[in-house]
Amino acid sequence: MSKPQLSVVKIGGNVIDNESALQAFLVDFAALEGFKILVHGGGKIATKIAESLDITAIFHEGRRITDRPMLDVAVMTYAGLINKDITAKLQALQNNAMGFTGADGNLILSEKRKNAAVDFGFVGDVVAVNADLIQVLLLQNVVPVFSAITHDGKGQLFNTNADTIASTIAVACSNYFNVNLLYCFEKKGVLMDSENEESVIKNLTFEAYRELCEQKVIHSGMLPKLENCFDALHKGVSQIGIGSPEMLKKDNSIFTLVTA
Amino acid sequence: MSKPQLSVVKIGGNVIDNESALQAFLVDFAALEGFKILVHGGGKIATKIAESLDITAIFHEGRRITDRPMLDVAVMTYAGLINKDITAKLQALQNNAMGFTGADGNLILSEKRKNAAVDFGFVGDVVAVNADLIQVLLLQNVVPVFSAITHDGKGQLFNTNADTIASTIAVACSNYFNVNLLYCFEKKGVLMDSENEESVIKNLTFEAYRELCEQKVIHSGMLPKLENCFDALHKGVSQIGIGSPEMLKKDNSIFTLVTA
Repeated sequence: MSKPQLSVVKIGGNVIDNESALQAFLVDFAALEGFKILVHGGGKIATKIAESLDITAIFHEGRRITDRPMLDVAVMTYAGLINKDITAKLQALQNNAMGFTGADGNLILSEKRKNAAVDFGFVGDVVAVNADLIQVLLLQNVVPVFSAITHDGKGQLFNTNADTIASTIAVACSNYFNVNLLYCFEKKGVLMDSENEESVIKNLTFEAYRELCEQKVIHSGMLPKLENCFDALHKGVSQIGIGSPEMLKKDNSIFTLVTA
Repeated sequence: MSKPQLSVVKIGGNVIDNESALQAFLVDFAALEGFKILVHGGGKIATKIAESLDITAIFHEGRRITDRPMLDVAVMTYAGLINKDITAKLQALQNNAMGFTGADGNLILSEKRKNAAVDFGFVGDVVAVNADLIQVLLLQNVVPVFSAITHDGKGQLFNTNADTIASTIAVACSNYFNVNLLYCFEKKGVLMDSENEESVIKNLTFEAYRELCEQKVIHSGMLPKLENCFDALHKGVSQIGIGSPEMLKKDNSIFTLVTA
């Protein structure tokens, strides 16, 4: 028997920070057929609120350190303000959304980041996803909406990378579903020429990816993102789309389809 | 066939504001046998955060008006910070807690308060509880943890009275469960003499309540609380306990048991 379809969609701060862009995205997401899960990142609201609360962001070589006050702000804004706003808006669009952190239902267990040269503070890497409970929820027509907060099972919450949450959920759910993982970001897809927004690579297989890496067409920020994609495909995800939020529209064919 | 037991426990700010009191309460709550639901109020954290964000609390005759900035603070602290902290802590106590607002899974639908002499702003009164979905979650051994935020189904979140949330959930679930509703507050129970903390009325029936009202033994703040209790009992709740958080301890018999 073939598995049912599941779409796991990740949106980042560029969508969340823009009220009309968020609403337009949610209308498209709500219209998606089949089982679906939304994973959202943070956006600038957390930084703004931290500033208002006189909490200073600490960085090490450009990477944010999550100390306790900053974790509290992340929990307040990601799991509180943003997650519940999205949930209420999806309810208004007749999607039975339910907002989660990894602590809720022990859905995403993580552990404090290890082996890093620097202590990033309350940052967790995913250890396990409770796909059984996610499946139960999906079969109740619930649309899970995940913020990028996880827990260690010992009472501690962690800030976690939203891309990783999306891919680990996608992998864990691939036991039960044919999973289509969609990364929405600020570009229309993986570009052949980073200066040309229209140079979207429409199909990217692992073989093509290797070649483009050798030719230095794919480099810097796109490298870890695509490595994660091929890892997820290797672990059972059916296909991955990378593109703008417009990717969810039925008539849109301009995005990068990543397949094994 | 007899219905299974369900405990609906409400805690207020006095427990939430005190870290060790909260932990002690959660240990007792986690040890409760049978199906259970936790409803929590706000506490002083919201006021503190609002002050830090330079948001001025607006009051009308001693009652708080929830304007938009204050609603955002309520969502951040109640549904974010407090709810996820409690959820993570219950996970550490081997309870599969899942934190909710009313928007999540459309669990509690409300409408903006009507017919009030004053516009209280984003304050909602409960219209419906999705007891079917709550039952599904309970049967998965999920322990729902509700913050006092609801939604109108049209995308708007509302601040809602936590006592009312507890009683409406209790009533809605009484179709499926024998519901024991427990209100934890700062006293040991309903007192015969408000000056004497030990004068707890151990059993309170509607008949006894009527008499005590006539004798002016029960008055002021306790009146609406008890009216709500008898209303909930009338609508199907089996019994109601009113007392300190210690009420949850197995060997504690000092609290007020309210029955029809």
